[in-house]
Amino acid sequence: MFNLIPLQNSLANVQGFFCDGVNVGMRTDDPSSGDVAFIRSKVPCDLAAVFTTNTFQAAPLQHYQRYPQDFQSDFILINAKNANAMTGERGIEDINTIFDALQKKHKALNPIMSSTGVIGYPLNIEKITSAFEKFDFDAKNSDKTAKSIMTTDSFQKEIAFRVELENGDFFHIAAICKGAGMINPAMATMLCFIITDADIPKSDMDPLLKKSVDQSFNTISVDGDTSTNDSVIMMANKTSGIYNKEAFEVTLNRITKELSQLILKDGEGANKVVAFKLKGAQSMQDAQKASRALSNSLLVKTALFGEDPNWGRIASTIGASGIACDTDKLSIYYDDLLIYSKEHPVLDSKREAEANIIMKKESYSITCDIGLGNFEYTSYGCDLSYEYVKINADYRT
Amino acid sequence: MFNLIPLQNSLANVQGFFCDGVNVGMRTDDPSSGDVAFIRSKVPCDLAAVFTTNTFQAAPLQHYQRYPQDFQSDFILINAKNANAMTGERGIEDINTIFDALQKKHKALNPIMSSTGVIGYPLNIEKITSAFEKFDFDAKNSDKTAKSIMTTDSFQKEIAFRVELENGDFFHIAAICKGAGMINPAMATMLCFIITDADIPKSDMDPLLKKSVDQSFNTISVDGDTSTNDSVIMMANKTSGIYNKEAFEVTLNRITKELSQLILKDGEGANKVVAFKLKGAQSMQDAQKASRALSNSLLVKTALFGEDPNWGRIASTIGASGIACDTDKLSIYYDDLLIYSKEHPVLDSKREAEANIIMKKESYSITCDIGLGNFEYTSYGCDLSYEYVKINADYRT
Repeated sequence: MFNLIPLQNSLANVQGFFCDGVNVGMRTDDPSSGDVAFIRSKVPCDLAAVFTTNTFQAAPLQHYQRYPQDFQSDFILINAKNANAMTGERGIEDINTIFDALQKKHKALNPIMSSTGVIGYPLNIEKITSAFEKFDFDAKNSDKTAKSIMTTDSFQKEIAFRVELENGDFFHIAAICKGAGMINPAMATMLCFIITDADIPKSDMDPLLKKSVDQSFNTISVDGDTSTNDSVIMMANKTSGIYNKEAFEVTLNRITKELSQLILKDGEGANKVVAFKLKGAQSMQDAQKASRALSNSLLVKTALFGEDPNWGRIASTIGASGIACDTDKLSIYYDDLLIYSKEHPVLDSKREAEANIIMKKESYSITCDIGLGNFEYTSYGCDLSYEYVKINADYRT
Repeated sequence: MFNLIPLQNSLANVQGFFCDGVNVGMRTDDPSSGDVAFIRSKVPCDLAAVFTTNTFQAAPLQHYQRYPQDFQSDFILINAKNANAMTGERGIEDINTIFDALQKKHKALNPIMSSTGVIGYPLNIEKITSAFEKFDFDAKNSDKTAKSIMTTDSFQKEIAFRVELENGDFFHIAAICKGAGMINPAMATMLCFIITDADIPKSDMDPLLKKSVDQSFNTISVDGDTSTNDSVIMMANKTSGIYNKEAFEVTLNRITKELSQLILKDGEGANKVVAFKLKGAQSMQDAQKASRALSNSLLVKTALFGEDPNWGRIASTIGASGIACDTDKLSIYYDDLLIYSKEHPVLDSKREAEANIIMKKESYSITCDIGLGNFEYTSYGCDLSYEYVKINADYRT
């Protein structure tokens, strides 16, 4: 048994970690917001990371992977507005130049970098290194840090728990993340930084993080795109001396799940979060395939926006996904309301009125029971609004 | 050698075929437009058809496939506004009831049906059969026929050629189609009817049609969705007594290519048609995969709408598609303008200005040379505008 106690000021609660965010003028849209941040530990940390499946990994991801396996680090530098992606070998050299400058101000062990923003432009080294004059390296400014990593996000995303074990021992896990678009099950365009003072062995870090990402960030879709920069990085400095695997796992999963739902809620131009629950599939692969097809379908997403119980688009998308299915065995529910089955093929006006009420909610579920097997999978999507088009037509300029 | 002579009034030119379109009140949006049409031949025709890959094929497609293989027919009945899809066995019984009524007015051999519109509602049999009182069964009203099959189409789509052989012999091929949304390479949501008086052997019809659909309708994407009703049906009544395989194939391919480009141009809310040319891929599968990923990407489509030369989204989408690729070997062109290569990684203001001019055009190409092999594939897509969201949020109501 253990208790999870939610905490304010996320990152600030974790023992031995410091963080700050400052403004160096990377943002031309809102020059008052922060744009460069750091998270550091006073002692070396073990690390675990999950990176994008995009073949074109950005320079910071390549830089990370050039360190020896199982390297330790005590410093992450993060910038917004420029992804340092598709910048070739120069992108990696730029990171080394930046870290040479960092070492003159603050001794860092194997520093790592994380970037988000536009693809295809070299970093402005002068601006980024000017942050080193402005950082308070001993601050615990989690609020400024969380704000500095935002791009099209409309609110900051952070979470922290104190994990209290039965005997009164405790440790902390805290995380911040950013992401609102280019969200896809093969990992969102998102950065997530998780820090902990739990005394977790390195051998637990990789499998627990991977599993946690699979059941959270990999179940959400805003627009079916997968970025070059997606990263979830976990740092453990062990300073509490306390660890309990079950408690750690439960807490980590709750953190990644809640953050992934916040990303979806902040999906560019989105007004609704819908759970697409695929039940009764013949295989897990089928369940995933159809569930993700639903959360990615433009016609489904526009029907959600229009609050139109057009279940034909749901059925058609399942049929188009190529999984084993049969109209005679299929049933579709909006929340608990049966909207289609062989016995009830026509949506009468009473059920249509009930469906309309459900579709006006901020979040609800669409359950499709294939009726052929026992596998189920849920992915999460959002509606597609005029606002999404506006944000993405105008993003770069 | 042969000559192709374009003809007005598409279907009306083909010997021995008749057609008409009438209004029976299926449309609540525009009650003045036609909504039920027929195409018939005075003599039995051989048929070829390509249907949707969606598992949930609509009732008319199932009805067609219950005829014996190589059956002949002389009558197609077409309705708009209701897809007769997800209507189960009742959907097929309704078609039989409709054709029983038809036989009392007009003797038809193995009549077939084709429907487009909303999924999940039974046909209004009374309205559809009332068309039999209004049809002129001996008319050649190709204009009314082409108009009656439209749904969200903003213009009618028809084409016809007289194919003149060297010795002066000639035959005709004509076609009408509809389609503007739910367009995807696994066949558009579209209906296409091709009629010919060429004396084509049945054994040529299936392979020529399949090949022609692959290089036309299967290369276009409006929104990545695949409908339950997609059908391309070709009827040959052989009445000219003339046939030349090469001339027939070239003409058929030109007809399907031009109609598919018309569908794309009429893509819901679309303002631009863009050819995504994938070159230098290691396999044809890779070339298709990346090319189609580009034509389906929301982020690419919104950048086209915003006229923003955000080539980073192009590169990122290729990387996310999972094909073999390498940033060092990749180059990207807008029309003939080099926009990215290892040697030119940064878009300077001169090339950006040139790119802006290209992106304002109604159609242009984006060529991605992967630089790893010799396979290439081109798919065609369009931009995603506010209007697309509006059309699809409001469609059913």
